[in-house]
Amino acid sequence: MFEMDLRLQQDSLVLGDFPLCRLLLSKDANYPWFILVPKRAGVSELFDLSPDDQAQLWKETTCLAETLKTEFAADKMNVATLGNVVSQLHMHVIVRRHGDAAWPAPVWGKVPAVEYGPGQVDAIRQRLRVLLDDTYEEA
Amino acid sequence: MFEMDLRLQQDSLVLGDFPLCRLLLSKDANYPWFILVPKRAGVSELFDLSPDDQAQLWKETTCLAETLKTEFAADKMNVATLGNVVSQLHMHVIVRRHGDAAWPAPVWGKVPAVEYGPGQVDAIRQRLRVLLDDTYEEA
Repeated sequence: MFEMDLRLQQDSLVLGDFPLCRLLLSKDANYPWFILVPKRAGVSELFDLSPDDQAQLWKETTCLAETLKTEFAADKMNVATLGNVVSQLHMHVIVRRHGDAAWPAPVWGKVPAVEYGPGQVDAIRQRLRVLLDDTYEEA
Repeated sequence: MFEMDLRLQQDSLVLGDFPLCRLLLSKDANYPWFILVPKRAGVSELFDLSPDDQAQLWKETTCLAETLKTEFAADKMNVATLGNVVSQLHMHVIVRRHGDAAWPAPVWGKVPAVEYGPGQVDAIRQRLRVLLDDTYEEA
């Protein structure tokens, strides 16, 4: 039975669902920072997923990254699964821009998180609703 | 025509080749830190690869991570493509252990690189020769 890790619940907002993954938004307005969490129990490493689920994770990750790159005017997309702190498998898909708060360093641990202001998260939800294909269901 | 980025050449050693990717070892003995570079020209983002190449990159990445996890006794594998400094597409596949030099932080920019001692790189080459399947060719 799939349950989201408590730390992921605390540090992010649920935006919606793809067929395999729940889509989260990190509570850090420094960067448009998204996280995909496969809705499978007991999975920590990529290779813990079945081959079909692996292919689906790759598809959801790559499609999301490609969409975000254009629509959020990224200079580079950062895609990573680390899991040293939260062992539940999750994939970061982060829009990076020249001159963002951590550029060119990776985002983790670089600068304190900044809270989203009123309406900003709703604006992101609305943008995604239009951008993502019909396999995406808003929460 | 595929050419390796100069920064990647400086910071790593060539170990061998998979069908799609060149396999590098980062010149940092703090962690068994490997890098896969697709042998394609002009590719920066995952989605710049053809669908077939994407599937192959995923396969090479996941197989390498699974093999390293067991054989190098990883507590967690870190898999990431960032590219903020070196824009040529490259995938980090890093063996992480509780108590390693950066644990539990990501490895980038955390502690200075440590040089490999005499024989250490050859030992890694030998281990990989035995571990990896016959799609791998040692350089």
